[in-house]
Amino acid sequence: MPHINVDENLPGIRSLMAFSPETAAPMGVLANLLLRTNEGLTMAERELIATYVSYLNDCFYCQHSHGAIVSCYLNDDNELVNQVIKDLNNAPISEKLRALLRIAGSAQKGGKHITTEQAEAAKRHGATDKDIHDTVLITAAFCMFNRYVDGLASNTPTDLSSYPLRARQIADNGYGNHIFTNKQPVADEQEI
Amino acid sequence: MPHINVDENLPGIRSLMAFSPETAAPMGVLANLLLRTNEGLTMAERELIATYVSYLNDCFYCQHSHGAIVSCYLNDDNELVNQVIKDLNNAPISEKLRALLRIAGSAQKGGKHITTEQAEAAKRHGATDKDIHDTVLITAAFCMFNRYVDGLASNTPTDLSSYPLRARQIADNGYGNHIFTNKQPVADEQEI
Repeated sequence: MPHINVDENLPGIRSLMAFSPETAAPMGVLANLLLRTNEGLTMAERELIATYVSYLNDCFYCQHSHGAIVSCYLNDDNELVNQVIKDLNNAPISEKLRALLRIAGSAQKGGKHITTEQAEAAKRHGATDKDIHDTVLITAAFCMFNRYVDGLASNTPTDLSSYPLRARQIADNGYGNHIFTNKQPVADEQEI
Repeated sequence: MPHINVDENLPGIRSLMAFSPETAAPMGVLANLLLRTNEGLTMAERELIATYVSYLNDCFYCQHSHGAIVSCYLNDDNELVNQVIKDLNNAPISEKLRALLRIAGSAQKGGKHITTEQAEAAKRHGATDKDIHDTVLITAAFCMFNRYVDGLASNTPTDLSSYPLRARQIADNGYGNHIFTNKQPVADEQEI
């Protein structure tokens, strides 16, 4: 049961964004900027980082929401997400992405856990400064989103069959971006 | 030395915001919404929560930047910040704020660490749902800001005498809010 009085018909962060649409606006903008671009890292790679961090933070809602979006982009059945979570060292991903996910794993523990060696390894495998920046900021942002969702004990659908439909909507349309379109925040459009 | 090539003349998060002004914009908006209002919690109380979380995350830059802003608002010499950090149970603050800082301390570890008993204790001492929401989101946001600053190993001034001047500017003018004024992001206006 949520710690505060939110609309219990809305799942996860959507109930919190409806409770506080003012703060939801910049959070939605940040999610779009970090996750809805293929500049450097692809959208699937960005969502995979978000999913991995949410898994490490044990945030069921975010892990499955964003894992389902990875699956939408890759048209697989959570296969890659499961492989990365189960065995990062041997998952079928590029060495660059593997190095960046190791950076994400360190940043999830705390910023100072990232080592110079980890940053150099990522660069050696082709990561740019922007790739490293975006990896750290996606990780940091999900350390925020995960704590927001679980910290207020928002309702989390445990039926995994409910996640793919919403994932498809986000994969097709992105996260709420009303702040740039002058639309009023609408809870149903916002999910991170 | 920073892990990526940023302007080393800018301290902490300011160098990162100059590197990535696009993502800096919503982060600045979020900081203003969470820290620059007296609705429910005062600005001093909000900055105290941010300082406490930054201390728990061992983020020197954010801890001292925001601690100096608390001191500006209270016109003390870091006295209250030091008392809260040293002994939260006996610091001279309201029982409501003490209960909220306990919630912040739990959320810093992870969202699920907040207990129903902690939320109920805060309400018993007069905390509203908005107070609890804002406490959790300030904590979550600083788990992001702290990881961003330390995760990229941005330069951190160790001379504590440099913090009060910048703190006074923020206390007087707030954080950068160019997104609402159509001004271009200017690194010097942005600091969280």
